[in-house]
Amino acid sequence: MSKSIKIVIVGGVAGGATAAARLRRMNELANIKVFEKGEHVSYANCGLPYYIGNTITNQKDLLLASPELFRNRFNVTVKTKHEVKEIKRDSKFVVVKDLEKGTEIKEDYDYLVLATGAHPIKPDLHGINSEGIFTLRNVKDSDIIKTYVAEHQVKKVAIVGGGFIGLELAESLVHRGIGVEIIERLDQVMAPFDAEMVEEIHKELSRNGVKVNFKTSVTAFEKQSDGSLDVKTDSNSKINADMVILAIGVRPDIDMIKAAGIELGSLGGIKTNERMQTSDPYIYAVGDSVETKDFVTGKNVIIPLANPANRQARVAADNIANPKTSTKYRGVQGTAICKVFDYTVAMTGNSEKALKRNNIQYEKVYLHPFNHVSYYPGAHKISLKVLFDPKSGKIFGAQACGVDGVDKRIDVISMAIQGGMTMGDLEEVELCYSPQYGSAKDPINVAGMIASNMLRGDQPLTHWSADEKREQLIDVRSPEEHSAFHVPNSKNIPLPELRNRLSEIRKDLPVYVYCAVGQRGYYATRILRLNGYDARNISGGVTTYKSVNPVADLKNKF
Amino acid sequence: MSKSIKIVIVGGVAGGATAAARLRRMNELANIKVFEKGEHVSYANCGLPYYIGNTITNQKDLLLASPELFRNRFNVTVKTKHEVKEIKRDSKFVVVKDLEKGTEIKEDYDYLVLATGAHPIKPDLHGINSEGIFTLRNVKDSDIIKTYVAEHQVKKVAIVGGGFIGLELAESLVHRGIGVEIIERLDQVMAPFDAEMVEEIHKELSRNGVKVNFKTSVTAFEKQSDGSLDVKTDSNSKINADMVILAIGVRPDIDMIKAAGIELGSLGGIKTNERMQTSDPYIYAVGDSVETKDFVTGKNVIIPLANPANRQARVAADNIANPKTSTKYRGVQGTAICKVFDYTVAMTGNSEKALKRNNIQYEKVYLHPFNHVSYYPGAHKISLKVLFDPKSGKIFGAQACGVDGVDKRIDVISMAIQGGMTMGDLEEVELCYSPQYGSAKDPINVAGMIASNMLRGDQPLTHWSADEKREQLIDVRSPEEHSAFHVPNSKNIPLPELRNRLSEIRKDLPVYVYCAVGQRGYYATRILRLNGYDARNISGGVTTYKSVNPVADLKNKF
Repeated sequence: MSKSIKIVIVGGVAGGATAAARLRRMNELANIKVFEKGEHVSYANCGLPYYIGNTITNQKDLLLASPELFRNRFNVTVKTKHEVKEIKRDSKFVVVKDLEKGTEIKEDYDYLVLATGAHPIKPDLHGINSEGIFTLRNVKDSDIIKTYVAEHQVKKVAIVGGGFIGLELAESLVHRGIGVEIIERLDQVMAPFDAEMVEEIHKELSRNGVKVNFKTSVTAFEKQSDGSLDVKTDSNSKINADMVILAIGVRPDIDMIKAAGIELGSLGGIKTNERMQTSDPYIYAVGDSVETKDFVTGKNVIIPLANPANRQARVAADNIANPKTSTKYRGVQGTAICKVFDYTVAMTGNSEKALKRNNIQYEKVYLHPFNHVSYYPGAHKISLKVLFDPKSGKIFGAQACGVDGVDKRIDVISMAIQGGMTMGDLEEVELCYSPQYGSAKDPINVAGMIASNMLRGDQPLTHWSADEKREQLIDVRSPEEHSAFHVPNSKNIPLPELRNRLSEIRKDLPVYVYCAVGQRGYYATRILRLNGYDARNISGGVTTYKSVNPVADLKNKF
Repeated sequence: MSKSIKIVIVGGVAGGATAAARLRRMNELANIKVFEKGEHVSYANCGLPYYIGNTITNQKDLLLASPELFRNRFNVTVKTKHEVKEIKRDSKFVVVKDLEKGTEIKEDYDYLVLATGAHPIKPDLHGINSEGIFTLRNVKDSDIIKTYVAEHQVKKVAIVGGGFIGLELAESLVHRGIGVEIIERLDQVMAPFDAEMVEEIHKELSRNGVKVNFKTSVTAFEKQSDGSLDVKTDSNSKINADMVILAIGVRPDIDMIKAAGIELGSLGGIKTNERMQTSDPYIYAVGDSVETKDFVTGKNVIIPLANPANRQARVAADNIANPKTSTKYRGVQGTAICKVFDYTVAMTGNSEKALKRNNIQYEKVYLHPFNHVSYYPGAHKISLKVLFDPKSGKIFGAQACGVDGVDKRIDVISMAIQGGMTMGDLEEVELCYSPQYGSAKDPINVAGMIASNMLRGDQPLTHWSADEKREQLIDVRSPEEHSAFHVPNSKNIPLPELRNRLSEIRKDLPVYVYCAVGQRGYYATRILRLNGYDARNISGGVTTYKSVNPVADLKNKF
C-alpha cells in the first residue's frame, strides 16, 4: 500500500517514535505527523537516572533522534511542545495545543496512534507541592533535579518508592556522594519480584549506606526553615532530607483518551486487541498506557517497559499499513532487569506471587551456582529461582540475582518461555562453555536437572516456606558448616557419613534433608530413598533459608 | 532398580566422572569402578591453558574431585594410573594394567561405559620427538610445559594450530610475557567458524603481537645447537622458537575399542545410538570419542566439548540404570566459545560452510549492533551472523564476535535452535533491557527483524560474497564516511538526500544499497522499493565488507 493516508501519532518517545519510523518504511506516501507535548522526542528515558548520577555526562547522548532527523530520514513531521487535548472520533480529527504559543489547531487523521505513555504518580499528600520534591519522567525533569542538587548543595535525598527507578536513582546519587534513604510501602524493594529473590539487594543497599524503611508510607511533607524537608510517615517517624524524589510508580496518561470514549481495560489501561487496535478501529495504542495480555497466563496486564512498547509500535504500524498483515502482539512476558550497585537482579515471566494471585498450580526450584567455573578468577554465585508447571514441566517464570551472568540466564529462560519449553529443555540446552563464561553444566542446565529429577520422582523437593512439620530434619553439611550456622532442630549427619549412619534415621517418619545450596542434599536424598526412606530435599539449602528468613543470618547459632 | 550390578567405567575425566556419580544416584547397590590411565580424575581440562598462563595459580583448583571424594560421597572405586588394555566382550571382562606396578588384572562387568576421550594429534614429522615439543591434554602435560618454560627461560613459543586450545594458549603465554607465533594450515583461525566471523580475532591476535602464519603447514622440526627449535614449513620458511606446542586437534582414543570389534561410525568415532549405546548392548560410550548426530542436520559428527560429554554421560547412566527410561541424547549443537585477549567469539548450530557442505539451502543476516545502548559507558559492537531456512525462517546457526555480551546472544539463540524456533521468534523475544545490559531492541531482536523483513519480501538482502554484477551500487552513508573508505564503483547518495535524488538512479537496473552496518541501507531500500525500484540491501554494510575482504581496510581510498 502506498496511497496517501494521514496518520497522527500522539507521543514521540519510545512507542510513538518507533511507530512513525516503521510506518514510513511501510508507506512512502503517507502523511505522518507526531505530536509530543514534551521538549524532546525519542529520548533515552532509561538513561535518566545515570544522567543524574553523572555516569552519562552529556545530555546530547540521551537525545536519540531530533525532529530534524525524523524530517530528513523518515519524511515525518514531529512537533514537540504540542499536546493533543481532544480526540473527535466522529469527525476523525484531534485538537492540538501549541504549548509555546498557546494556540490550538485541528489535525485530521485517517489513523491515530496513541503513545501517550504514563506519568509518575504524585499522591495528594500534605506538602506534596513543596519546593524540593520532584518526579522523574523526562530529560527536563532530570535537568531540574541536577540543577537543584547543585544549587542547594544537596547532601541527602529521600526517595519514596523502592522500585526500578528508585533504586537506579539511589545508586546514581550515592555514586555522586549523596546520602540516600528510601521509603518503601512493602516489606521488599522491587515489587514484581518475590521477596526472597531481592533479599541480596536489600543487603547490597545496606552495604552501600542506603537505608530502606520498609512497610512505611509517607503521610506528609513539611518544609523546614533551613530549606530541608521532613518526610512524615505512618510509622510516626520523620525522615529529614534536602530533596525528595517520588518514584512510586506511573499511571497511564489517558484522561483525554477516556474522555473520547475509547474503551479501557479492567486495570484502567487502554484496551487493545492483538493488533494493538483500540475499541475504535481507526485508533491504535501502544506502550505504557495500554493493557495487553500476559504471555504466560493470558491475564490482562499493564507493563511499562521499553521492549514491549517498541514491539507494540511495530505491530500497530504493520497493521495500519497493511490490515491483512499477520503481525500480532503475542503478549508481554515482563522481562525486566535492574543493576543495584554491584548486583544485578532480573526476571522473566511470572513470579510466584503472580502465580498464586492467579490460582495457577506451580512448582519451583532454587539454586545458587557460580556464574562460571569457580576455579577461574571472578566467579560469583547467582541465586536462581525457576517456576514451572508441576505436571508438564512447562516454564512459567524465573528470577535471578547476582554479580555477573544474571542477564544471560534470564534471557535464555525468556526465550524458552516464548517457545513453550520445559524444565527438561533447560536440562538439555547446550550453552557456551569455557572457564570465563559458564560451566560444563551451566546454571540453566542445573535448574533443569533439579526440576527434572523432581518431576521424574527421583528427588522430591520441598521448600522452607512450606507449612510442613519437619520432625526429622537432617543437615548433611560438614560439622564445621553446621556449627557455624544451622536451621533450628536439625541433626547433623555429614554426607560422607550418611551411608554408615542410616540407623540413626527413623523410617517411619519423612526425612527432610538440606545442605548449603541443595547439591549434597540431593545426593543424600538419593541415598536415603534408595534405602527405603521417604526423603525429600529442601530446595536451595541454607542459602535459600537465609533469604526466606532474612534475619536468620543475624540470629546467633542455635 | 537397586540390584547389585557391576559397572566398569573406562576414563574418569568429564564423561566418566559424571557417569559414575549419576549411576550411583540411580542405583545405591551397584558396584561401580572407574579406571583412569592418567594421574587425576575429574580435572578441569578447560582450565589448563590458564594454569599455564598463571591466571589460575593453584594446581589444586583444577582437581575437581579426588578418588577419596568418589569413595566418600558416591561409594565409587576410582583407580588412577590404571589403563584398560582390552575388552573381552564375550566373557564380559576387561583387562586392566596397573601402570605403576606393571601388573594386569581382569575386571568383569555387567555394563561397560567407555569415556576414553581423545588425545592430541602428533603428526609423523621429522624431529617431532625433539626435546621442547609438547602437547596439552592433562594436568601433568601442563606441569611439564610450565617446568620447561621456567627451566629453559622460554621467550618464544611456536604454536602449531590456531584452534581453541592454540588461541587460549597464545593468550596465556602472552599474558606471561612470552612471544607467540602460530602456524595454521587454513586461511583462518578456529576452523568451525566462518572465516569472516573470526577476522576481528585475527586483528586482535595481531594487536597483541601474535603473528599467525596462515595457509602454512609444518614439514619438520630441527633442534638447534642453542637448544631452540626451527619449525620448517611448506612455505619454505622456518620459524625459530624455544618451545613448540602442538594444538592441531584431537583424535578419539579408540584403538582398544576398535580391537574389541565395537562398531565405529563413518567419521571414525564410536558409533552410538540415542541412548549412547554402542553396537554391543552392554557397552555405552560418551564424550570426545563418540560419534553422535548434529541436532540441526541429523548428520554424524564428532564434537569434543564438555557440555555434550556431560549430557551424554547422564543419558548413558540413566539408560543403564533403567532401560525403560525415556532419557535420550538429542544430538549436539556444537555450541562453543573462546576468549582471545579482549574479544570473545562464539557459535551455536551450523556454520555457513557446514550448511554448504551438507547442501542445505540457507539464508543469512549480518549485523553489527552495540552490546548495550551506546549512550551508556562501555558499549562495544558485536558482529553477529545468523543462518536460517529461507522458507520457514527456522534458525540453523549463529556466530558472534565482540568484546562483551557475545556469550549471552549465542546462548539465547542456542535455546531457540533447540526449540525449533524461527527468526520471527527472535524478532519477538523479550530480553532483559536496561542501559547496562542491552537495548530496547536487543541485537537478537534486530537480527530477527532484518530476517523477517527479508522473509516478508520487504527488504531483499544480498551479500558481499555473492557472485553478482552490481552495476548500480549506492552508498547511502554521509559524504565524509564515503570519502574515508568505500567499496569500488559505488555512488554516494546520502540517505537524507535520497528522496530528492531518485532521478539519478536507473529503474531498469537492480539497485544495490549499502551503508556502515545495514540500517540506513534498509531505510534506503524501503524508500527505493516503495518508489518502484528493484532495490536490495547488502547485509552488514561496509563493516561486513571489510571482514569478507580482510585487506579492504588496508587498501587506500578508491
